[in-house]
Amino acid sequence: MVIQELLDKKRLKKELTDNEISFFVNGVAKDEFKDYEVSAMLMAIAINGMTDRETTTLTLEMAKTGEMVDLSKIDGVKADKHSTGGISDTTTLAVVPILASLGVKMAKMSGRSLGFTGGTVDKLEAIDGYKTDISKDDFIKNVQTIGASVISQTDNIAVADKKLYAMRDVTSTVQSIPLIASSIMSKKLASGADIILLDVKFGKGAFMKTKKDATKLSKLMVTIGKNAGKKMCAIISSMEEPLGKGIGCTMEVRDAVQVLNGAKNPLATVSKCICVEILKLAKNIDNKTATTLVEKAISDKSALNKFAEMVKAQGGNEKIIFDLSLLKQSKSKVDVKAKTQGTVCEINGEMLGNSCKLLGGGRFKKTDPVLHEVGIDMEVRIGTKVNVGDTLCTIYYNDDKNVEEVKNSILNAIKIKNVKHVKKPKLIYKIVR
Amino acid sequence: MVIQELLDKKRLKKELTDNEISFFVNGVAKDEFKDYEVSAMLMAIAINGMTDRETTTLTLEMAKTGEMVDLSKIDGVKADKHSTGGISDTTTLAVVPILASLGVKMAKMSGRSLGFTGGTVDKLEAIDGYKTDISKDDFIKNVQTIGASVISQTDNIAVADKKLYAMRDVTSTVQSIPLIASSIMSKKLASGADIILLDVKFGKGAFMKTKKDATKLSKLMVTIGKNAGKKMCAIISSMEEPLGKGIGCTMEVRDAVQVLNGAKNPLATVSKCICVEILKLAKNIDNKTATTLVEKAISDKSALNKFAEMVKAQGGNEKIIFDLSLLKQSKSKVDVKAKTQGTVCEINGEMLGNSCKLLGGGRFKKTDPVLHEVGIDMEVRIGTKVNVGDTLCTIYYNDDKNVEEVKNSILNAIKIKNVKHVKKPKLIYKIVR
Repeated sequence: MVIQELLDKKRLKKELTDNEISFFVNGVAKDEFKDYEVSAMLMAIAINGMTDRETTTLTLEMAKTGEMVDLSKIDGVKADKHSTGGISDTTTLAVVPILASLGVKMAKMSGRSLGFTGGTVDKLEAIDGYKTDISKDDFIKNVQTIGASVISQTDNIAVADKKLYAMRDVTSTVQSIPLIASSIMSKKLASGADIILLDVKFGKGAFMKTKKDATKLSKLMVTIGKNAGKKMCAIISSMEEPLGKGIGCTMEVRDAVQVLNGAKNPLATVSKCICVEILKLAKNIDNKTATTLVEKAISDKSALNKFAEMVKAQGGNEKIIFDLSLLKQSKSKVDVKAKTQGTVCEINGEMLGNSCKLLGGGRFKKTDPVLHEVGIDMEVRIGTKVNVGDTLCTIYYNDDKNVEEVKNSILNAIKIKNVKHVKKPKLIYKIVR
Repeated sequence: MVIQELLDKKRLKKELTDNEISFFVNGVAKDEFKDYEVSAMLMAIAINGMTDRETTTLTLEMAKTGEMVDLSKIDGVKADKHSTGGISDTTTLAVVPILASLGVKMAKMSGRSLGFTGGTVDKLEAIDGYKTDISKDDFIKNVQTIGASVISQTDNIAVADKKLYAMRDVTSTVQSIPLIASSIMSKKLASGADIILLDVKFGKGAFMKTKKDATKLSKLMVTIGKNAGKKMCAIISSMEEPLGKGIGCTMEVRDAVQVLNGAKNPLATVSKCICVEILKLAKNIDNKTATTLVEKAISDKSALNKFAEMVKAQGGNEKIIFDLSLLKQSKSKVDVKAKTQGTVCEINGEMLGNSCKLLGGGRFKKTDPVLHEVGIDMEVRIGTKVNVGDTLCTIYYNDDKNVEEVKNSILNAIKIKNVKHVKKPKLIYKIVR
């Protein structure tokens, strides 16, 4: 078999066989192909697509090019969740302790992503002492005894994905649904859980800009997971504005703890929805029963206590969970005030995320450190009525170098118009099972 | 401008601007892009195509990356012809002297192609002493004084084409009409003639397998040439069987000389058609007048004498033109005889070409020498009725190593069936002006 035959078929929109896909993926993992051969294949896939069968095979083969995590030593049902990413999206920090307190084993490896703000691992590290780089044995022990552990993902998961992702980035083939689906799902399948819940975001602040694309991606990933023997669910949720109040690590930890303390807000809504869906799959119960269990885990503080237990087990100061004032504070802060009167019609999450990055709360390079204590705390959402001088948000910063630029960017990101009513985006658009 | 923006546009089937195409082509010529960037672009073009405007710009920009041959010192109208290639297709050797004898200046640079049999330059070199690597000055002097010169193409014509062609070859993007058209036409535009005639072949022995693709390619190349200010014509002709009788350099020289001596056969038909079309464009005359002129140039031997003059001017033994027995002979020959009775229904030109190559009459590598005197001389065409034992063709060879293999291959290439009548393929399907 030579790669030119495969290129020829994909150029002509023909279906590749399982053997051909395996040949391609393993060749990529072992560096057997020239870069120009791989890039030509990625472009052909990005344009001509792949059938569900082809994408499933691609995903499974990619998963097998790295370590396949063995969670079999852990008793009970193991669940994992994944969000395609958004601004102030910290559901993991709420979902993991809620489900663990209800007996679902949460074994989650999370990326230290190159994004606007820190990833889940960075947020946990905002809790003084919390270690995310514990050994695989300690990870499994923690999940077994406490019911949950979140650690940083090792480098040898889905080796082919790393190489393909790097090539997609430089050849403008990132935006391809089969390539996105296989990239996400290969890592999830390698992570070993029985249940995989995907939170697929759509909107201005998300990777998928439209409901249609988000639905297509969700259905494909659910199909791939089911074909691989997993219990699957995808929630399609809106990212037309930041999900939580805080944009930045410590503020997002606070938002998650508030959900565990019973706060009612969009972050709580999405977090609970994720918990209910995973619980239904884990315990084979109906929606009402699952919802009651989740609400009880919050109201009786068992979820909050579970979070403290998790923090303690990985070296963190668990007192912070009960007293948020112990979280590290930024050196300075400044309020951004409304210059016009009206209703907030639009909040550009990407611009806010970029502002957080400029303050030092996100990464430009993969090796950059993240300042946990800086960020933006929002006082408005879409639909909020404001007068001139009302506080739109507060900027938390250590260095005033970029503060003026950030302030102006925020004023551009929050559109205030003189209208009576604004249609608020529906938070959860669809659930794909 | 970065190449990723262009990749993004072409992936989404958007039209590239002139500036963007120029940026791409010049970057390729100057080795400014990574191989994987170029291959991704070629795959995107191969799948999503290009508009006529994009292909015209691509072609002109490619032409400008190398030497633009200046023929302005030559008086009169300068014409060039190009065939997309086929088996026993030696029209150039007949067309050039006919037109030169009629006052059209024929300045032709020809490739030493990597094909089944030798290219035009190899065929001319089969004439003892003929030099195809004369200087540019001598080339122009010969065209000016004699009216014709055929030399081997220099390496600095359309530099970007060489790099793109090499990349297409290894990424399975050879079969793309805009990429084929720009590759051919960039070299033709750089060669400086006023009139360009294209002989686009279709059929089993040709690059374009169908009339539809040949028509599409022809129309596109004619449009590109006209947009670049050239007088254009494309003949779409059949390559369902070898055009001439001989397959191999000396035999093809003989076939061309026979056309100049008044032979009536398919090679003569296509050669005269090419002459008539070029003459019409050069002298602004009608079909009948042009046909009469061409027939006269043959009947009064002025074309044959012109060929001898051309040969002499480039160091060749011109006596050969008047006495073909002076052509170099192979060491041995053997007849291939029919094993069944019937009518020849199919002649696979590719298999015959490959046989010629096995005898040493073509190249495996670009640096291989070509044996001029070996090859296959056909005694049958599609429609010929044969009895058992009739000679189908004669193999001319120096080394008997591959002769048995060649013999078997020829017997497979010539399909004889017990039918009364076979529909002969129409030689000239269409003329695109």
